[in-house]
Amino acid sequence: MDKLKILGVGGSLRKGSFSKGLLLEVKKLAPENVDFEIWEDYNFPPYNPDTEIPENVKELKNKIKNADAILFSLPEYNYSVPGFIKNAIDWASRPYGDNSWEDKPAAIMSESIGNTAGSKAQYHLRQVLVCLNVHALNKPEFMVPNATDKFDKEGNLIDEEARGKIKPLIEALVAWTNKLK
Amino acid sequence: MDKLKILGVGGSLRKGSFSKGLLLEVKKLAPENVDFEIWEDYNFPPYNPDTEIPENVKELKNKIKNADAILFSLPEYNYSVPGFIKNAIDWASRPYGDNSWEDKPAAIMSESIGNTAGSKAQYHLRQVLVCLNVHALNKPEFMVPNATDKFDKEGNLIDEEARGKIKPLIEALVAWTNKLK
Amino acid sequence: MDKLKILGVGGSLRKGSFSKGLLLEVKKLAPENVDFEIWEDYNFPPYNPDTEIPENVKELKNKIKNADAILFSLPEYNYSVPGFIKNAIDWASRPYGDNSWEDKPAAIMSESIGNTAGSKAQYHLRQVLVCLNVHALNKPEFMVPNATDKFDKEGNLIDEEARGKIKPLIEALVAWTNKLK
Amino acid sequence: MDKLKILGVGGSLRKGSFSKGLLLEVKKLAPENVDFEIWEDYNFPPYNPDTEIPENVKELKNKIKNADAILFSLPEYNYSVPGFIKNAIDWASRPYGDNSWEDKPAAIMSESIGNTAGSKAQYHLRQVLVCLNVHALNKPEFMVPNATDKFDKEGNLIDEEARGKIKPLIEALVAWTNKLK
Repeated sequence: MDKLKILGVGGSLRKGSFSKGLLLEVKKLAPENVDFEIWEDYNFPPYNPDTEIPENVKELKNKIKNADAILFSLPEYNYSVPGFIKNAIDWASRPYGDNSWEDKPAAIMSESIGNTAGSKAQYHLRQVLVCLNVHALNKPEFMVPNATDKFDKEGNLIDEEARGKIKPLIEALVAWTNKLK
Repeated sequence: MDKLKILGVGGSLRKGSFSKGLLLEVKKLAPENVDFEIWEDYNFPPYNPDTEIPENVKELKNKIKNADAILFSLPEYNYSVPGFIKNAIDWASRPYGDNSWEDKPAAIMSESIGNTAGSKAQYHLRQVLVCLNVHALNKPEFMVPNATDKFDKEGNLIDEEARGKIKPLIEALVAWTNKLK
Repeated sequence: MDKLKILGVGGSLRKGSFSKGLLLEVKKLAPENVDFEIWEDYNFPPYNPDTEIPENVKELKNKIKNADAILFSLPEYNYSVPGFIKNAIDWASRPYGDNSWEDKPAAIMSESIGNTAGSKAQYHLRQVLVCLNVHALNKPEFMVPNATDKFDKEGNLIDEEARGKIKPLIEALVAWTNKLK
Repeated sequence: MDKLKILGVGGSLRKGSFSKGLLLEVKKLAPENVDFEIWEDYNFPPYNPDTEIPENVKELKNKIKNADAILFSLPEYNYSVPGFIKNAIDWASRPYGDNSWEDKPAAIMSESIGNTAGSKAQYHLRQVLVCLNVHALNKPEFMVPNATDKFDKEGNLIDEEARGKIKPLIEALVAWTNKLK
């Protein structure tokens, strides 16, 4: 039986990024029937429909299309989705008529150093996902508050409670993806 | 008496951009007591706190700090603020402790080719502005629906009704700025 | 084969309500395999967990539980969901552990007299639906802008373009409901 | 010199309500130059523009108009503003042309039993306040997470850290109100 392909999108770019740490933890904990890959390159120019689609955008678009589902991992920048992640989302939704996100199932993870845990970024992303016709999983919601206590300096998730919630999230995304096929 | 300095931020990058056209129209119609300048360079790398602040970010930060008020002009990408504009906002809010947007008055314009006129982008931006401690004007709201009928192919605003609303918006922003001083 | 039961929720209370008119139009246009019923009673006290659950709340909760899917029809009050509809939603989500909305598929309609067509109410409702674990259909979105031109004084939908979009919405909700079973 | 009149709006209706407890604490801690009054009656019918304005709505509208500023205290119901509070807001914004909230300064408090502290309700309310032309204070934001640890069973705020943030909030609202006069 084919493995389910899940593409991890997001994470901040700083060394020891917590949201990147979440994706790395998913890589470790993903069940056997899941092939989990992390998209790493966010070095895109500002979206401009007049220019040729950059090569790395084409590659991202292919990765998305080949994926069965998407797993977003968000830090929260200024109460919303980081601009550089939104720029990647914008590029991959174009040109008109070739929205690579179309009809994909997805789940969202977030973290923040405060108590609201990136929830404001998650809810902005959810509105974006309606436009993209991405089917976002409702539950379980996955948010890590007070992140500085939950990750080490290399960005490894060291909080057992949070780690314990990763497998159920992936399993819920797998079940959601199978249901929507 | 010193002129009030307003910095225009936003507009999409395509030729004939409608949201850029709004900023150009403001430039034409701004009253004598206003010095209106448009920020043009959005060619920033993805925000990364580990790297040196790029020169053009430093320049943007200075422009913002020297401005008395900000006027945002938004296209709507995927039901939210364009990623590349959000990335500029994110850069200018950092490093921690040096948020260039701090305490600035602001107004928002938007347009879209559909009927909702960029309102979804405006309301996401408003949440971001709370984080930045920017004081967004409530009224008048400025939105141009069905933009393809209201601009020519070079992006000039040719709709008299919409043009008639620009001066009142600038006057309201000037009054708001003076009140908050 | 059993008919699919869809419960219509919403509509404003004034005579000739446009959002109620949308529900009445769905009643007329619903395909044969759909049993469409409109919930009419919003005369609930302010939600208070200390009081007995009112009889009409119990009745609403039963109707929701017996429905296969929900169709919301929203006017927009002050850029959000009308308070009285949200109060009905709140009641039906309680007591803790007995959320009647749990796991229901749903679609949303809205209208407004302006151009934004109730979209701000729709997007606030979508956030509420995540909490309730209701699975909201992404597409097609159904919004009627400039409603005073599209309905007669009795609240009948007289705009052919809008009427033409009702059947596809119901069919999409039926397909979504069958997929999620 | 006249005292500044602040009207407290919100709080849930259950005995020992935490959000009501916040308002009661403000009553205790309000500085001498502030006259703080709490609106207690939320027993309004569902908003209906066809009916006479109820007596208690008229009373609420007068209280708002006579107030110099508004202080909202929100529990979060289903990731948004409680329906019964939104219904009160809707009533007081009508009839058309008599929006009692017009041009009022305001601040927002919230709490929740989880970590996100009612922030989702706060951000929905902020969008509503733009429509009402209420000028919401940006900072300091006031949110109490994990409320069951911070209040006693009678709803008294017993957390010193949270109590210490009330006076600065009121002082900021007073300064904001004076600036906007």
